[in-house]
Amino acid sequence: MALEDNLPLVGEADDHFHDECGVFGIFGRSDAAAIVTLGLHALQHRGQEAAGIVSFDGTQFHVERHIGLIGDTFTKQSVLDRLNGSRAIGHTRYATTGGSGLRNVQPFFAELSDGGLAIAHNGNITNAMTVQRKLQKEGAIFSSTSDTETVLHLVATSKERDTNTRFIEALRQIEGAFSIVALTSKKMIGCRDPLGIRPLVLGDLDGAYILASETCALDIIGARFVRDLKPGEMVVVTEKGIESFFPFELKENPRFCIFEYVYFARPDSIVEGRNVYEVRKEIGAELAREMPVEADIVVPVPDSGTPAAIGYAQAAGLPFELGIIRNHYVGRTFIQPTDSIRHMGVKLKHNANRRCIEGKRVVLVDDSIVRGTTSQKIVQMVRDAGAAEVHMRIASPPTRSPCFYGVDTPEAAKLLASRMSIEEMAEFIRVDSLSFLTIDGLYRAVGEAARNAEQPQYCDACFTKDYPTRLTDHDSTDNVRTLSLLAAGGQ
Amino acid sequence: MALEDNLPLVGEADDHFHDECGVFGIFGRSDAAAIVTLGLHALQHRGQEAAGIVSFDGTQFHVERHIGLIGDTFTKQSVLDRLNGSRAIGHTRYATTGGSGLRNVQPFFAELSDGGLAIAHNGNITNAMTVQRKLQKEGAIFSSTSDTETVLHLVATSKERDTNTRFIEALRQIEGAFSIVALTSKKMIGCRDPLGIRPLVLGDLDGAYILASETCALDIIGARFVRDLKPGEMVVVTEKGIESFFPFELKENPRFCIFEYVYFARPDSIVEGRNVYEVRKEIGAELAREMPVEADIVVPVPDSGTPAAIGYAQAAGLPFELGIIRNHYVGRTFIQPTDSIRHMGVKLKHNANRRCIEGKRVVLVDDSIVRGTTSQKIVQMVRDAGAAEVHMRIASPPTRSPCFYGVDTPEAAKLLASRMSIEEMAEFIRVDSLSFLTIDGLYRAVGEAARNAEQPQYCDACFTKDYPTRLTDHDSTDNVRTLSLLAAGGQ
Amino acid sequence: MALEDNLPLVGEADDHFHDECGVFGIFGRSDAAAIVTLGLHALQHRGQEAAGIVSFDGTQFHVERHIGLIGDTFTKQSVLDRLNGSRAIGHTRYATTGGSGLRNVQPFFAELSDGGLAIAHNGNITNAMTVQRKLQKEGAIFSSTSDTETVLHLVATSKERDTNTRFIEALRQIEGAFSIVALTSKKMIGCRDPLGIRPLVLGDLDGAYILASETCALDIIGARFVRDLKPGEMVVVTEKGIESFFPFELKENPRFCIFEYVYFARPDSIVEGRNVYEVRKEIGAELAREMPVEADIVVPVPDSGTPAAIGYAQAAGLPFELGIIRNHYVGRTFIQPTDSIRHMGVKLKHNANRRCIEGKRVVLVDDSIVRGTTSQKIVQMVRDAGAAEVHMRIASPPTRSPCFYGVDTPEAAKLLASRMSIEEMAEFIRVDSLSFLTIDGLYRAVGEAARNAEQPQYCDACFTKDYPTRLTDHDSTDNVRTLSLLAAGGQ
Amino acid sequence: MALEDNLPLVGEADDHFHDECGVFGIFGRSDAAAIVTLGLHALQHRGQEAAGIVSFDGTQFHVERHIGLIGDTFTKQSVLDRLNGSRAIGHTRYATTGGSGLRNVQPFFAELSDGGLAIAHNGNITNAMTVQRKLQKEGAIFSSTSDTETVLHLVATSKERDTNTRFIEALRQIEGAFSIVALTSKKMIGCRDPLGIRPLVLGDLDGAYILASETCALDIIGARFVRDLKPGEMVVVTEKGIESFFPFELKENPRFCIFEYVYFARPDSIVEGRNVYEVRKEIGAELAREMPVEADIVVPVPDSGTPAAIGYAQAAGLPFELGIIRNHYVGRTFIQPTDSIRHMGVKLKHNANRRCIEGKRVVLVDDSIVRGTTSQKIVQMVRDAGAAEVHMRIASPPTRSPCFYGVDTPEAAKLLASRMSIEEMAEFIRVDSLSFLTIDGLYRAVGEAARNAEQPQYCDACFTKDYPTRLTDHDSTDNVRTLSLLAAGGQ
Repeated sequence: MALEDNLPLVGEADDHFHDECGVFGIFGRSDAAAIVTLGLHALQHRGQEAAGIVSFDGTQFHVERHIGLIGDTFTKQSVLDRLNGSRAIGHTRYATTGGSGLRNVQPFFAELSDGGLAIAHNGNITNAMTVQRKLQKEGAIFSSTSDTETVLHLVATSKERDTNTRFIEALRQIEGAFSIVALTSKKMIGCRDPLGIRPLVLGDLDGAYILASETCALDIIGARFVRDLKPGEMVVVTEKGIESFFPFELKENPRFCIFEYVYFARPDSIVEGRNVYEVRKEIGAELAREMPVEADIVVPVPDSGTPAAIGYAQAAGLPFELGIIRNHYVGRTFIQPTDSIRHMGVKLKHNANRRCIEGKRVVLVDDSIVRGTTSQKIVQMVRDAGAAEVHMRIASPPTRSPCFYGVDTPEAAKLLASRMSIEEMAEFIRVDSLSFLTIDGLYRAVGEAARNAEQPQYCDACFTKDYPTRLTDHDSTDNVRTLSLLAAGGQ
Repeated sequence: MALEDNLPLVGEADDHFHDECGVFGIFGRSDAAAIVTLGLHALQHRGQEAAGIVSFDGTQFHVERHIGLIGDTFTKQSVLDRLNGSRAIGHTRYATTGGSGLRNVQPFFAELSDGGLAIAHNGNITNAMTVQRKLQKEGAIFSSTSDTETVLHLVATSKERDTNTRFIEALRQIEGAFSIVALTSKKMIGCRDPLGIRPLVLGDLDGAYILASETCALDIIGARFVRDLKPGEMVVVTEKGIESFFPFELKENPRFCIFEYVYFARPDSIVEGRNVYEVRKEIGAELAREMPVEADIVVPVPDSGTPAAIGYAQAAGLPFELGIIRNHYVGRTFIQPTDSIRHMGVKLKHNANRRCIEGKRVVLVDDSIVRGTTSQKIVQMVRDAGAAEVHMRIASPPTRSPCFYGVDTPEAAKLLASRMSIEEMAEFIRVDSLSFLTIDGLYRAVGEAARNAEQPQYCDACFTKDYPTRLTDHDSTDNVRTLSLLAAGGQ
Repeated sequence: MALEDNLPLVGEADDHFHDECGVFGIFGRSDAAAIVTLGLHALQHRGQEAAGIVSFDGTQFHVERHIGLIGDTFTKQSVLDRLNGSRAIGHTRYATTGGSGLRNVQPFFAELSDGGLAIAHNGNITNAMTVQRKLQKEGAIFSSTSDTETVLHLVATSKERDTNTRFIEALRQIEGAFSIVALTSKKMIGCRDPLGIRPLVLGDLDGAYILASETCALDIIGARFVRDLKPGEMVVVTEKGIESFFPFELKENPRFCIFEYVYFARPDSIVEGRNVYEVRKEIGAELAREMPVEADIVVPVPDSGTPAAIGYAQAAGLPFELGIIRNHYVGRTFIQPTDSIRHMGVKLKHNANRRCIEGKRVVLVDDSIVRGTTSQKIVQMVRDAGAAEVHMRIASPPTRSPCFYGVDTPEAAKLLASRMSIEEMAEFIRVDSLSFLTIDGLYRAVGEAARNAEQPQYCDACFTKDYPTRLTDHDSTDNVRTLSLLAAGGQ
Repeated sequence: MALEDNLPLVGEADDHFHDECGVFGIFGRSDAAAIVTLGLHALQHRGQEAAGIVSFDGTQFHVERHIGLIGDTFTKQSVLDRLNGSRAIGHTRYATTGGSGLRNVQPFFAELSDGGLAIAHNGNITNAMTVQRKLQKEGAIFSSTSDTETVLHLVATSKERDTNTRFIEALRQIEGAFSIVALTSKKMIGCRDPLGIRPLVLGDLDGAYILASETCALDIIGARFVRDLKPGEMVVVTEKGIESFFPFELKENPRFCIFEYVYFARPDSIVEGRNVYEVRKEIGAELAREMPVEADIVVPVPDSGTPAAIGYAQAAGLPFELGIIRNHYVGRTFIQPTDSIRHMGVKLKHNANRRCIEGKRVVLVDDSIVRGTTSQKIVQMVRDAGAAEVHMRIASPPTRSPCFYGVDTPEAAKLLASRMSIEEMAEFIRVDSLSFLTIDGLYRAVGEAARNAEQPQYCDACFTKDYPTRLTDHDSTDNVRTLSLLAAGGQ
């Protein structure tokens, strides 16, 4: 309700790509829904709009979906009491334009002819609309605008009788990026798309298997990290244990999303074998080596630029300083009741720490630039606080293309880097110098010698336009807009 | 409502002294209530439980009080629309035990015989209960348990006719720490107690006077910082301008609360002429000089330990690392639905960054230790993550005595430092070494040569038991409990 | 909240005088608050806007006040659980213009120097504003706009030490109509004004004393009706039993509100010894005798006209028919979203039963006419349904003057009967004939031979302008408006 | 929310069969949703739990569904503002056990391959479960447990291309009782089952066609009653006008639900040509003729027994008296917080009017007896009030069998008349005499000479077990329980 009644954010909309979703499931633990709640809380950075949990108590499925933060909605005793059972899966979700509202909150649940099925996913099925149209022609009824419901229908319409086979048949019909967690009356199923674009890890809590988007969701409950699911792997957890399947022909190398390291994942997570914080510091160090500058202090744009700024400061031998203070109490919305306020450049989220900055040559470190509007304001704020020089260093290459794999990105035309050269961008945000990390620098930070142009080791399409999958829903016209009929991104 | 229905916090209660309140007022600006909302948002760190705003539109006063964060409650157009007028004052409040509920949310408002009066304060009136009893015997009816209402009654019962004189008469009857902002149909009044224990600053926004607890509330709206109010000063803002009064005999030196520098104030504020971030860094540097240790990395307990950790790392020449990651989505409450969860040591708020810590000798920097329970858990978490050694460095002296000046502190018996030696504390929280900053080190960090034992330059009673005022309400018995009848702390 | 967001009622605002309030108290029954909840539910017809209950558990007072119907707000287990104790009083309230909002919901409660005092009342203190101004000059702070709070202040400022004496001293300073129920840590006190204008009865439930506005509130819980409180009587219930006091000099005859029989009281109540239903039927019979008419059927305006219509039909020997059907699901507010709807004469509350009315000569019976707008619409509706003739018979004399005794009446100028002759009124509401009961007819219906003009046996000021008390708050100017500063009517 | 938090009703659960649902639609009126809101308000007696409206604005469908009364939920400007468009249909619903919750609130809406389709119905599809199982085997996903969704799926899976034909194909596959209102982007469709068991009328408001369950929903907005839809008729309203289709082979006579006259319909409605109030009065007169008794007064059990009691009193020449007063403020839930209260026989809804009843021989008239528990309590209440004799007269034959046509009835074993003789029932409810109307008496009251046993003129299965349709879902086992998997009754 607050979402609709409150006024839109003044000034500093958060200028980032927004991943997307977090998923979590546990099988065989008496207080399953409470564990899922904690897991989703640890994954809250992957989506703050809404969340859902489905549990199974041996007889019945229980579904709860709420708008808001996990800690505000799923911590009521009454909510948890309704989520009986020792098996549960959950999902936390970022709001994409148009697709909000409870009916799009995952997990989706339906009673199929052979029993209940709940399903949640992180990613985006790039042929969902095409498949949906086909299913609708056959009489299927869609109750949401989410691509996730498509998977539910594909499982439902499978003529196979065995659950695993039905699921495999469904998976083979979808394209794109997806890390899926599903629950039936007998099984918890997890799977990753053939390229492993989105993360999904397996954990263990005293013998109960866990599926989660990131390892930080295992840490919060003291669960053991077992391993990442492999690209294209489907695991099936039953009372007897865990089985592994590989439904897809794997022709290519994996293409894990490199932006998870740049911004999405939590710094304390271990993603595909690497600690995110260490990668970000290394990115900062690469940046210092690639783009050095004479300066007095290194200041992060908090919090996303902080690890890279630490890495930069250490590599450059410059002091790391909190020259910008972040107000963590900012909600998602804020007032702009009058024109006078709208025009006064209110600093809801960040404030320059004047005494720290005054008269200094400042290296400002941020993780990325999307539209550039926030960078512009922050630079102005730092200048107003008396900085002698402002040198912006960005911990990733310029983001030039939208993501179709479960990330909320503006259309290409709104991406600053797609319409300006670096020089123009520097002018636009009014810095003395602006540098981005090179694509090879980014690959070095994750331990590669360089990007392999023939067979890139990661999905880096937002930097390179090199999309690793077909984009069926908009192949013909290349019109991104048509996709908007279906909410993007497993969201 | 959420406050009552949600379950209590698991594990990591925030183990800090809790200041208290923030106040903000503006006189002569068409969108006054919206400005106050922004100001209170910037002061949110001084109190997150509830907030209130009273505006005056030239004819009528409008009162709104809400439980929750400013950004969630005062940003609705309907709320702001009801707060007409070009003059408004507001208050944000920390929840103290027992005293929550809307009727205790400030500002308080009453129609007196000569018109409306709204009043909000930060601090604690140490003879409020004594005064209240006297007033009750004369037939006064109290509708709250807040000490602030006492001031309202004192103004109301004054036989004087002039508002300023009535106010001065009331102020002379109260003792303790108080920074007051009040609004009548003609005036905005601000005042600080004779020792200036709590902060209050004067600002200016295009000719409209502002009163605020900290300068960060001026920054958010681009207002100009004019000056701190002087200890014992009362300023009266009318349409004609501003006048200054000194109602109290000032016998002693000022005694500004030194803990504002340690923890309460926001790092970007300028408090009594000093930048809080710089003081905290200097505290960290003093700590490194006083209590050096062989180590590999310096890790802050985020976010309160971060500036001191940066100062420590710079002074010690050690790398500053984010070895502990904080989850900023933690609400005020969280689940503990089952015993199994309660006993699993859930890490809702902090997680160790294992790869960063493993095998390292860690200097852990925090601002203070209150009960020690959180420190214990964090140290355990750091050890579990594989730290070779853990050396705790605290950016203030041991806190041994409760504060009676508007800060929520546990009774003395619950303060770890009041019942243990430093060695015992080290053992209790299981560190390889534990050191606190000395009191003289703290005074050096704020620019003094040392503490002047005869005439201390600050209020440091929480470290020294040297209370700068009478404590009338509990003089005879020295029983802190009796105070609880009246909610402590201007709250 | 619903009150503010919903749109105003279309068309048929309920055109009645609106009593006012219901009070209920019980002393010495373990589930006291639940009993009060039931009692207030039975008194819901006396006020639907809001209700409050204060209980005392031997140590503490508990206060709950809610906007809405008893059955929606006080039936939650959590609410009742908070209202511990074996003694409780409650109040249900009609919304008067301007004075709504939780802070005006009774009972009022304050901690006085000698302990807690809760107080609720039905009626209106006609010198409340005068007393309030005097108290404010002495420094009293009023937290509501209700006249009830005045009584609280008078008790609080009494210099007497004994509770009974303090109460008596307070009662002697107030004028008007009041049936008060109060609760202290030791006593439940009930009292009626010297003329007994408002009702108050004493009951007994297995040894626990009850005070209630009407006997129907005793019936719901199977309590025994003991007696009406006498005009001017104050009863004090303690653990030892009940004592009776008469604080006032009783110079005059009692003047019970005759309109309680006409409309306010519930038909099944026994009021001052008479059954309301029987009185209303007798009123109908008088009306048939006084104002006969050739007709086919007698149709009540439901539900308020029903008993009189039955009496009329029986006396006139005509069939009683439900020619108008009432929709009981009408809330307090309803839509008028568009002009087209506003102008279509929506019949939210009543519908003519066409087949029953068509071609018939209809005697339409209602209890009273206030503004006449509803009558106009209902007559039109009956005509549209094909009635051959419409003869309106009103079960009371014309209402010409406002009530100052706790009843919500429009100012005199808006009372149809104050600005039109009966002929003009007949034309205004477009009936073939219109007759009102005579004042003597009304007195006959309640068992008197006629009205005693020297010493009227009832308060009938709304018909006669013969106010039985001083109207201090508007004596000088005779300006009713000034009263509105203070919410009228113990409400 | 209130539904879940409030405590269950004390004592007097409403002991009636509960119809079911009301439907309403309008095509071609700018403020369509507001009109539907008014229409549903007039149909509120057909279902109070929840309601929904779907509108179409020429481009988009808008869906709103809310728990609660129309007047509380659909009267907010914000709700109506979201329901743009000149075409809208709505539904109001009674809560059946198990099937509550928003996902079961109608109208149901889905985007089919050829556009959106909204559908609402009153009745019950007696082969819904069988059809649903078949559809699920083919992969259909059901998002509710309502039989209405089945129709949606049948339309969706039709291979026909023309909407009318698709609809007809769907209708031919369902059995039972149904009055359906549907909306597509081009059409509003209405239809009744082949036997016309449930009512559906056609109206006209200044050229805009209306479909509604009862004529009282036309009256509220001043719409013109055109005619009843014929049994088995399907009407299609487009911009060009209205067309009529007859999809079913009509082998039998119509079988309109005779219980609509007894209890369900509103007295002011004209149902299948007869005014409900007149029928009920005639029922009362038949009862007086069939089952006369020496008595002093006739007292209705309000409000359901009132018209029959009037008819009885007129036919018997006895006075009609309001011997029982109903409290109209009873919500759906009420307290039973303590055992002592649960056992005190609280009279939340009815109170005996003692003075009216005392010493009298009372004829008590009610419309029906279901479980008998309420009758028992009411008789006891009348006896406690001093009645000399109590003679119960029931305005319908004994109800012996459950309804499978959209009415909430207890299983047969709980129907008092299915397990007791009339003498036993009289003893059970402790009356001096008990009589029911004969089935022929009931037929006479609706204008027939008698019931035609070969070809009954009405559906009277609840009295006779003579079900007019197949009951496919429970043919084999005759186990009513299995039906409960699917919420009964278009509800």
